[in-house]
Amino acid sequence: MSGLDEFSLIERLFVPLSLSHPGALRLSDDAALIDGPVGTEWAITTDALVAGVHFLPDDPPDLIARKLLRVNLSDLAAMGATPFAVLLATCFPGDVDAGWLDAFAGGLRQDCSAFGVAVIGGDTVATPGPLTLSVTAIGSVPKGGALLRSTARPGDEIWVSGTIGDAAFGLLVAKGRASGLSAAAADGLLGRYRLPTPRCALGPALRGLARAAMDVSDGLIGDLGHICETSHVGAVVEASDVPLSAAAEEAMAFGLGGIDLALTGGDDYELLFTAPAVAAGQLAEVGRRLDLRLTKIGRIIEDRGVTAVDAAGRSLPLGGGGYRHFGG
Amino acid sequence: MSGLDEFSLIERLFVPLSLSHPGALRLSDDAALIDGPVGTEWAITTDALVAGVHFLPDDPPDLIARKLLRVNLSDLAAMGATPFAVLLATCFPGDVDAGWLDAFAGGLRQDCSAFGVAVIGGDTVATPGPLTLSVTAIGSVPKGGALLRSTARPGDEIWVSGTIGDAAFGLLVAKGRASGLSAAAADGLLGRYRLPTPRCALGPALRGLARAAMDVSDGLIGDLGHICETSHVGAVVEASDVPLSAAAEEAMAFGLGGIDLALTGGDDYELLFTAPAVAAGQLAEVGRRLDLRLTKIGRIIEDRGVTAVDAAGRSLPLGGGGYRHFGG
Repeated sequence: MSGLDEFSLIERLFVPLSLSHPGALRLSDDAALIDGPVGTEWAITTDALVAGVHFLPDDPPDLIARKLLRVNLSDLAAMGATPFAVLLATCFPGDVDAGWLDAFAGGLRQDCSAFGVAVIGGDTVATPGPLTLSVTAIGSVPKGGALLRSTARPGDEIWVSGTIGDAAFGLLVAKGRASGLSAAAADGLLGRYRLPTPRCALGPALRGLARAAMDVSDGLIGDLGHICETSHVGAVVEASDVPLSAAAEEAMAFGLGGIDLALTGGDDYELLFTAPAVAAGQLAEVGRRLDLRLTKIGRIIEDRGVTAVDAAGRSLPLGGGGYRHFGG
Repeated sequence: MSGLDEFSLIERLFVPLSLSHPGALRLSDDAALIDGPVGTEWAITTDALVAGVHFLPDDPPDLIARKLLRVNLSDLAAMGATPFAVLLATCFPGDVDAGWLDAFAGGLRQDCSAFGVAVIGGDTVATPGPLTLSVTAIGSVPKGGALLRSTARPGDEIWVSGTIGDAAFGLLVAKGRASGLSAAAADGLLGRYRLPTPRCALGPALRGLARAAMDVSDGLIGDLGHICETSHVGAVVEASDVPLSAAAEEAMAFGLGGIDLALTGGDDYELLFTAPAVAAGQLAEVGRRLDLRLTKIGRIIEDRGVTAVDAAGRSLPLGGGGYRHFGG
């Protein structure tokens, strides 16, 4: 049974268990919503990371901790929520030592402080398997103000923050496939893979401007597919408009991969959102205020399916478009 | 490095990250508290279960799912909270097939329905290691009404629900160490180990009556130690008053273990609580209403430490008293 079949089976099996709570959003958004203090909701999300699957076992422990936190804060940002607290379930193999734990906790401490988040609970157990970490993150959003995946409309423009593809190239660097690339480019790409920057300021700033939003974790095209699926729309991406870093362009010139890798590779943790054309001016202003590049890369259409076209309007062949996972 | 050292190190490392949110209760209670809708708080807890550590890999998948849910609902009950929703992070090994998943989801469905809980989010990933499951459970409690571990006072009476030790004997049955025990006793004990009954009705009913509470997951004496530690008190348990099932008594007569196993074995998921003597009548009434045995087993004292004494008042030698884990 392939991984893909398994996960869509799980989706079919678990979604019915979510229907009694509308705020579960059919397990198809970046986080669920539950009532918070008057006028607010809590956005709540959970993610699991496994050594050898989601990070490399010899990645520095402080970076593992920070990435774990950041991928969850990215889900909250995609909902327009401001992070508040996390719970941490850790399964440690026997060979974890005090130095490793100390570094792990140090990374966590650094980013909890940077993002204003408290660790409010957790569980620590032993495992005979690989290091396995799961985080539940909680953020606040004004009631009714959360950004959803399901609300894109034909005619919306598609936007993305930052640059796309860096993490996919960075993973190749981590795997030692980029010897010969300049140290500056290699370090930059590796850094983007190892330590994403959740767009915690951008998410809340998009409330009232963006129509649909999510974070780019599975790859731009695959994630846009999630928005289109839940919104019952389609999308056309102008591949030549997709923002690439100088390092990614160097990696492409070097032959590490093509634009298809940038469009389908995961782990960028940028925000992908749609907005009516009338919001473009205000979005540009948000980008200036946050000193964060926001780029219009395409448009939502009625016809289903996601297409990427080149500058001449020709459809680009793309692979499956990232892996799927249930929820978060 | 021993497991114990590791976990107390983690505690030292993580507790400082909790201090900015008083509702984290220094990671030393069954759940954390965050603000809910007006007049309420959400109790929130997370637990991880690993195949081969917390359940046997060939346990029936529906029972694994139900136990996963129930141990978390037990934490909420210990806070006096009414369960509302869960998030589920699952790490599946490659050999999990559709039949297994279907049975797992079936068990989850059955207990979500039984306990009125929705699955509001989750993450499903692949692992090269053992099946690893973590649940975050959320319940509601009137603001300021949660039952804590840290509020026991000298003079309080110590109570426990149900019977104690069944799960510890049940684990021995599961391991095939009880051949010769009557089928009725073996099945009963095994059932208590495989499928605990969270005291979801009792927890909320104890609000305003009990002073401190937690659930018995690590063993009666060890868990009472947690209450004493956070409350800065001590405890004396009358071992002969600790309620044992007929099956546990049969297992003891059979030689499967002594009273020390019952007092220190884990996984019973009964509620352990303290209350002023004046509440005894009302507590008896709660027990009658819920048709649940509530038994007075000792008293809280000023002097630190937990002692179990026999009917003649002699102190019983006990081992370390269960394993420790961080939070939850």
